[in-house]
Amino acid sequence: MKTELEDVLEKVSRGKMPPRKAFLKLKDYPYQDLGFAKIDHHREVRKGFPEIIFGQGKTEGQIIKIAQEICKRGNSLLITRTGPEVYRKIRSKIPGCRYNTLAQTITLKKKRPAPGMGKIVIMTAGTSDIPVAEEAFVTCEMLGNKAERIYDVGVAGIHRLFGEMEKVRRARLIIAVAGMEGALPSVLAGLVGVPIIAVPTSVGYGASLQGISALLAMLNSCPGGVAVVNIDNGFGAAYLASLINHL
Amino acid sequence: MKTELEDVLEKVSRGKMPPRKAFLKLKDYPYQDLGFAKIDHHREVRKGFPEIIFGQGKTEGQIIKIAQEICKRGNSLLITRTGPEVYRKIRSKIPGCRYNTLAQTITLKKKRPAPGMGKIVIMTAGTSDIPVAEEAFVTCEMLGNKAERIYDVGVAGIHRLFGEMEKVRRARLIIAVAGMEGALPSVLAGLVGVPIIAVPTSVGYGASLQGISALLAMLNSCPGGVAVVNIDNGFGAAYLASLINHL
Amino acid sequence: MKTELEDVLEKVSRGKMPPRKAFLKLKDYPYQDLGFAKIDHHREVRKGFPEIIFGQGKTEGQIIKIAQEICKRGNSLLITRTGPEVYRKIRSKIPGCRYNTLAQTITLKKKRPAPGMGKIVIMTAGTSDIPVAEEAFVTCEMLGNKAERIYDVGVAGIHRLFGEMEKVRRARLIIAVAGMEGALPSVLAGLVGVPIIAVPTSVGYGASLQGISALLAMLNSCPGGVAVVNIDNGFGAAYLASLINHL
Amino acid sequence: MKTELEDVLEKVSRGKMPPRKAFLKLKDYPYQDLGFAKIDHHREVRKGFPEIIFGQGKTEGQIIKIAQEICKRGNSLLITRTGPEVYRKIRSKIPGCRYNTLAQTITLKKKRPAPGMGKIVIMTAGTSDIPVAEEAFVTCEMLGNKAERIYDVGVAGIHRLFGEMEKVRRARLIIAVAGMEGALPSVLAGLVGVPIIAVPTSVGYGASLQGISALLAMLNSCPGGVAVVNIDNGFGAAYLASLINHL
Amino acid sequence: MKTELEDVLEKVSRGKMPPRKAFLKLKDYPYQDLGFAKIDHHREVRKGFPEIIFGQGKTEGQIIKIAQEICKRGNSLLITRTGPEVYRKIRSKIPGCRYNTLAQTITLKKKRPAPGMGKIVIMTAGTSDIPVAEEAFVTCEMLGNKAERIYDVGVAGIHRLFGEMEKVRRARLIIAVAGMEGALPSVLAGLVGVPIIAVPTSVGYGASLQGISALLAMLNSCPGGVAVVNIDNGFGAAYLASLINHL
Amino acid sequence: MKTELEDVLEKVSRGKMPPRKAFLKLKDYPYQDLGFAKIDHHREVRKGFPEIIFGQGKTEGQIIKIAQEICKRGNSLLITRTGPEVYRKIRSKIPGCRYNTLAQTITLKKKRPAPGMGKIVIMTAGTSDIPVAEEAFVTCEMLGNKAERIYDVGVAGIHRLFGEMEKVRRARLIIAVAGMEGALPSVLAGLVGVPIIAVPTSVGYGASLQGISALLAMLNSCPGGVAVVNIDNGFGAAYLASLINHL
Amino acid sequence: MKTELEDVLEKVSRGKMPPRKAFLKLKDYPYQDLGFAKIDHHREVRKGFPEIIFGQGKTEGQIIKIAQEICKRGNSLLITRTGPEVYRKIRSKIPGCRYNTLAQTITLKKKRPAPGMGKIVIMTAGTSDIPVAEEAFVTCEMLGNKAERIYDVGVAGIHRLFGEMEKVRRARLIIAVAGMEGALPSVLAGLVGVPIIAVPTSVGYGASLQGISALLAMLNSCPGGVAVVNIDNGFGAAYLASLINHL
Amino acid sequence: MKTELEDVLEKVSRGKMPPRKAFLKLKDYPYQDLGFAKIDHHREVRKGFPEIIFGQGKTEGQIIKIAQEICKRGNSLLITRTGPEVYRKIRSKIPGCRYNTLAQTITLKKKRPAPGMGKIVIMTAGTSDIPVAEEAFVTCEMLGNKAERIYDVGVAGIHRLFGEMEKVRRARLIIAVAGMEGALPSVLAGLVGVPIIAVPTSVGYGASLQGISALLAMLNSCPGGVAVVNIDNGFGAAYLASLINHL
Repeated sequence: MKTELEDVLEKVSRGKMPPRKAFLKLKDYPYQDLGFAKIDHHREVRKGFPEIIFGQGKTEGQIIKIAQEICKRGNSLLITRTGPEVYRKIRSKIPGCRYNTLAQTITLKKKRPAPGMGKIVIMTAGTSDIPVAEEAFVTCEMLGNKAERIYDVGVAGIHRLFGEMEKVRRARLIIAVAGMEGALPSVLAGLVGVPIIAVPTSVGYGASLQGISALLAMLNSCPGGVAVVNIDNGFGAAYLASLINHL
Repeated sequence: MKTELEDVLEKVSRGKMPPRKAFLKLKDYPYQDLGFAKIDHHREVRKGFPEIIFGQGKTEGQIIKIAQEICKRGNSLLITRTGPEVYRKIRSKIPGCRYNTLAQTITLKKKRPAPGMGKIVIMTAGTSDIPVAEEAFVTCEMLGNKAERIYDVGVAGIHRLFGEMEKVRRARLIIAVAGMEGALPSVLAGLVGVPIIAVPTSVGYGASLQGISALLAMLNSCPGGVAVVNIDNGFGAAYLASLINHL
Repeated sequence: MKTELEDVLEKVSRGKMPPRKAFLKLKDYPYQDLGFAKIDHHREVRKGFPEIIFGQGKTEGQIIKIAQEICKRGNSLLITRTGPEVYRKIRSKIPGCRYNTLAQTITLKKKRPAPGMGKIVIMTAGTSDIPVAEEAFVTCEMLGNKAERIYDVGVAGIHRLFGEMEKVRRARLIIAVAGMEGALPSVLAGLVGVPIIAVPTSVGYGASLQGISALLAMLNSCPGGVAVVNIDNGFGAAYLASLINHL
Repeated sequence: MKTELEDVLEKVSRGKMPPRKAFLKLKDYPYQDLGFAKIDHHREVRKGFPEIIFGQGKTEGQIIKIAQEICKRGNSLLITRTGPEVYRKIRSKIPGCRYNTLAQTITLKKKRPAPGMGKIVIMTAGTSDIPVAEEAFVTCEMLGNKAERIYDVGVAGIHRLFGEMEKVRRARLIIAVAGMEGALPSVLAGLVGVPIIAVPTSVGYGASLQGISALLAMLNSCPGGVAVVNIDNGFGAAYLASLINHL
Repeated sequence: MKTELEDVLEKVSRGKMPPRKAFLKLKDYPYQDLGFAKIDHHREVRKGFPEIIFGQGKTEGQIIKIAQEICKRGNSLLITRTGPEVYRKIRSKIPGCRYNTLAQTITLKKKRPAPGMGKIVIMTAGTSDIPVAEEAFVTCEMLGNKAERIYDVGVAGIHRLFGEMEKVRRARLIIAVAGMEGALPSVLAGLVGVPIIAVPTSVGYGASLQGISALLAMLNSCPGGVAVVNIDNGFGAAYLASLINHL
Repeated sequence: MKTELEDVLEKVSRGKMPPRKAFLKLKDYPYQDLGFAKIDHHREVRKGFPEIIFGQGKTEGQIIKIAQEICKRGNSLLITRTGPEVYRKIRSKIPGCRYNTLAQTITLKKKRPAPGMGKIVIMTAGTSDIPVAEEAFVTCEMLGNKAERIYDVGVAGIHRLFGEMEKVRRARLIIAVAGMEGALPSVLAGLVGVPIIAVPTSVGYGASLQGISALLAMLNSCPGGVAVVNIDNGFGAAYLASLINHL
Repeated sequence: MKTELEDVLEKVSRGKMPPRKAFLKLKDYPYQDLGFAKIDHHREVRKGFPEIIFGQGKTEGQIIKIAQEICKRGNSLLITRTGPEVYRKIRSKIPGCRYNTLAQTITLKKKRPAPGMGKIVIMTAGTSDIPVAEEAFVTCEMLGNKAERIYDVGVAGIHRLFGEMEKVRRARLIIAVAGMEGALPSVLAGLVGVPIIAVPTSVGYGASLQGISALLAMLNSCPGGVAVVNIDNGFGAAYLASLINHL
Repeated sequence: MKTELEDVLEKVSRGKMPPRKAFLKLKDYPYQDLGFAKIDHHREVRKGFPEIIFGQGKTEGQIIKIAQEICKRGNSLLITRTGPEVYRKIRSKIPGCRYNTLAQTITLKKKRPAPGMGKIVIMTAGTSDIPVAEEAFVTCEMLGNKAERIYDVGVAGIHRLFGEMEKVRRARLIIAVAGMEGALPSVLAGLVGVPIIAVPTSVGYGASLQGISALLAMLNSCPGGVAVVNIDNGFGAAYLASLINHL
């Protein structure tokens, strides 16, 4: 596939595009500037998915404005890390959008995303890890993947995990969510041969160091095949999983 | 004792159990799946104690649902790290359960646990360490152990400790709870010959680093015989102590 | 596909296998016990690749003994993190094996591994990151993948990276190796739509904290699609990449 | 230029100043003592800018008292890190002062500061970094510099940055504000030849460690020309930038 | 049992001991002062085991001198963390002592220690963890316990662990030695009902942080029953295990 | 001076005290047991000052109960780290006690403490460090010392410090309180020849790490004569200063 | 000034350059690819200085090869962090180059760099900080700046610093090098009104944490005007200083 | 006492000193500039002790040159942290100087220092802490103090400490040296009423973090009266002790 640069250069060379216009095109094309944010409406072309709004650290006004611009163009909407109060304000402006309380996401499906190849299995070690897993689940679905949940199968009762191995073995890849000692991804990597995306969570106390302990454990996984993302980053795990699942 | 696997295999071999059923048995047997949690009702068989609910990070609804399922089967109930508001909701649904304000536990004794061999002495360095010690105390009792409290005997006034040595010497094992410099377990280990389970607490400020300093001090204890658990983990210390006390 | 457990159970049920033998089979089958190590000769079946020897922390004698057992069974050999002195001893015992000085690997191809789907591009930010990248390169090749190297294209001269974008765009997935500020994977993730496996290296000094800074930067990558492995873990990155490339 | 010490010594030597008075002059001259604070009204002479009030950690009463003493002498006022409630109290006492909600600053221009030489460009990686950038912007302007904002041009969409390169190239120096992986200053330093003052922000979560990750990344910047200040220290970056811009 | 203090007081009271002598007795009784060390020959009485020499950080001369004083009194000798060069010097002076290369211990059995109650099973996750496990093994035996080794059964090949479960189930308590992600003790605690003494090792690299990662993982073990000791502290684990095994 | 032990032994020897009573005396003598606290009323004898109540982490009820027991015996009262709400409850029960809002202390002078030898000068680097300095000031005075305050003389305007050198030179010892870069104690130690007790404060943000940066700076003070206490530990600094001032 | 992109586009548009050639030009132009390194010979055009070789982590062969390519084009040579053994090999191949033992640099002046505007004063707190300062000094000179050294003027004897204030006041900007408590830059920033580039060094022990303490202190400098670079990064400080000095 | 500044000003005022000379006097007076070091020969006047050479990080040539200049003026010599090879070179140039192998100090007494008031007792927790204690001992003696050693009395055998309490009680102040859990100073502070200078040592392994654990424990000492210095800083402890002992 030709790169954009090559394409523009060719047009310029054939006299179909004046150089100044080409320059401006290359410069201004891919985003819309709101001052406080530059929305990448062409991201879908370049990366395969529409722009996603990370809600944390943005004001309500900023989130709503960006969301409206995305929807205006007929793109699907996914807002992560956002509270119910934003939802209460946004739903009158963007009819049809939905809020997921556990995942803390606002979504609206417009375009049907390209379907992923296989099934992504999302597992948690404990009950308290579920919100992070749900963020991953919503993201997986929004990005066109089939996803299945298997929750509360950590090493504290490893036979629970074994009871779910049939489902686990049907996965094309696994998102394994765990706090505390973070052993679930390592145990899974010793059992199965598919890629495992490990998500440490801030679940725990004291020496869990807000998830640092689980993060370190996962980075040191003795069996191979484990990829790690940031603490509580359910979205990031799902985004990566979807990239792999669409290869 | 035969393992479960051997037992099932034998039955299958004798034609007493079809293989598919055996497989399902091994898979589904030991826990009840609530979706958000997989309750291990057979834990009592395998580990000697009923399933215990760690309240922190679970919703009120989840705690109550799990508690009801445990009680339904006639098992004793121990919920740790849970606030009075959960208790106010649960007491109408599980009559007879009790709340301990200091320990932040909800308990209900049904079956009488196997009695421990000796006495577990629970000590604190200061007054502020008492909530952690109380969590340990409640857990010890729920698990069938005799426990005795000796509070506020840290190194700031070491003669207080010496005044309690008679009691200390009657212990089969000791749970030593301390924040700040965390010296109590090391001092005890230099004085007595029984195992000491050291619980660092987050009591302190500044360079106490929320209990990390006490934790490190305990891990570096020069005299031997000190086992360390997570910061503020009164439950974990008591659980371990009870395992040892039932050997 | 049937699981091993189901298979054995079925045989036992049909009287084709006595239960005791089944038990022993399930217990002893998958590894060979050398006392100091339990070699997993069946790993290839379960995980798709033969057992790999992580040389660091093992004695020369242990490495050689394990290598011989692997080769005896006609499996390919890959030893990582091993010095030239081991190679000098091993080459007389395992003829045909080769040493890669940069990657610090000993290899011997026996079986041809299943070929990967696309090309894995291995990039480094600087010249000093090359040894880690080479470990990844050797591993990719041993596991059946086509791999291409693009070295010294870090953000210090970002135009070097742009000069290589044609090659980069041909990648099915990317292994991005960087020390110091560790920005390369984030920059790549903003440019391309394929999964990026980020390998922080211990290259740097002072506040690089032996690779911790690069590791943290990669875990915090703002653009999505970045999976992180342990510091200097070229092998782990390649193993994961190969898993994905064989999906 | 003569130093103050030389000047006083000379006067004393010529009999124009008695030694005791000289001593007291040297001792008491440069500040006004409020007990809880010693205001440096002569700072403008020595450092080129009037005293600035860092609001955080001071009581409302302390801030207002110091502000009044500064204004009494006809000096310009800049209070950083202060909330709207202080503004509500101070505006009746110091008429004409203004509050900037994003930057959390109170300002009042009295004297016109010496103008800076060129333009300071203030850039952010994301939308959430804007408050820190605004503190820098207000400070730059108060200290006599022309400043231009370019926001939300982090590596997640690096083409947004390239679209702004014309503006970037007009900068005499750059303040680059970024949280998470903190790659923006490094990328800029690879592209342009002006000094870059890097401001890590506490934007992020988990392994961002409240800005420590971005800070470390910036300190390890592979391309040269990057100066780092404390996390979220927009004021410090602008103060330093202004010093350089007035050389 | 009477305390020493009571005993001396009684004698003094009956006129059988003059007060000054009593004072000196209480002061000087329990150790021999070499200036650089105070040897506790009565430790055996008080703690049940003879004094043990921690070799690290002591000069050869100090180690030999202390060892000679211990042997002179007919006590058994255990020196840990000591190199072969000390052994070469000491064996002529203390005939019959033996050196264990893996464990780095010098031992000489004189008195037969009180036998422990059950079997202590010592397990390692990998081959590189063996030296720490061997230090534990030697210590267990010197202190009168039966010990059994099960090495290289970490989560990288969890079926290896299951293959050893029969042996594991015969343990009265377990010492679980693991570096890297340190998951072995947690997995064991989910499977068995005996106390587990977890020993993190410095095996690993990069984010293993010289054993800190494994240590943190073990402290955060979700299943209960895990006691943690310092990194690489095989001796400490065995000492504690022996205390428990002699209860 | 005779030790308590010698004294009791002598009495027992002369038949003036039965041994059992002596034992109990030695055991029970020095404190009063409230269950949750063991008050050391004899601390004044042993350490020269009455028992002091560290309010943080104690319940209101515990603080009031301990305070009453101390006052009942005619001892002076010093409660640190306690809020105004405790004061509002305690003042009706302990008439005459006073609350210091800045220092967060409750005090009541009963006995006149032994006077210190010289003057303790308490200095702060900034205005925000004053609460910690005030805790030190109140403690110094309660323990019988003359103390003088010099506030806001940090290195940001080092001439302010020089303006106060006359006062500084009259100090017998100095308590230097500083957050942020924590340079004040080092600068002072380069200027004067008296002991300096350095108190790091949690004043600052970002890389100040809640006072850790100031703490580390003080521990690394290049000029000698600097003793360091915990972060924000104004009480501890004053207690130590008073010990030295009473030598 | 026109950007390269504009220039090439214009040529293409006028038919003076075929698009494919333009593409390749943009891709290949700015560096020479040695495989293990991509040398940026045009850096001088873009950044104002020739490419500089960071020796650490490169093999002797790599350093020599890159140096030869740089010299071949008539550019000046600066190699930092390189030992005498490289110099011994390189001097026969690149005649006229010189080694600085303290600074650990190899240099060869070819082109005369553009002269800086004012004087850069390089100061150290202690004698042990000199090697880092010398690296800065050599770099300053190679980049066309006048530099002056003032060594051993840390806060341990602050009068030494005052004795040098005349020289200090002549500086256009200051590089302040300090380990241990790292107070020198903060003290200087309180005294003078020029930008200060602070270089923490790894000089110190224990709680200096290999320079982290000094780094943190500098980042928290209370007086403004302090820019911080990585630990021991004399080169980086000088590079930044030179950029500023050439504005 | 008049300050130097006042004195010079007075002379200038009376025409006894020309102002330029006064300026130079104030500037150049107090140190001798060797280029790489500025020796403070007047430190004895200002601080009560001669300049001391911290050997670590200085070259042999630098140490010898500084030592010669100090001795030339008839001052006593104390070099800390220096190896035997420096001693072998220096003893021919400075006859009579002595090397202490344990303390790693070179000393030569010339002037008799002012005697301290009482006895400084130097204690260690273990045998491995002795080198740090010896550095303190040598320094104490060089600075005119009587010092007594009590070694190997840590909490591992707390009765050893009690056996030495008579000596301990004769101390005017105590230097307590301990690694590992660092409990000795806290235990002492609970027993005696004199100031305790706590020196953490890097003795230990694993979670001792090269002395950080002991350092943290000491900073968090629950009983008051404990001052902390840097890890392994025997000199600093003694210097501070001497300052206090000369009050």
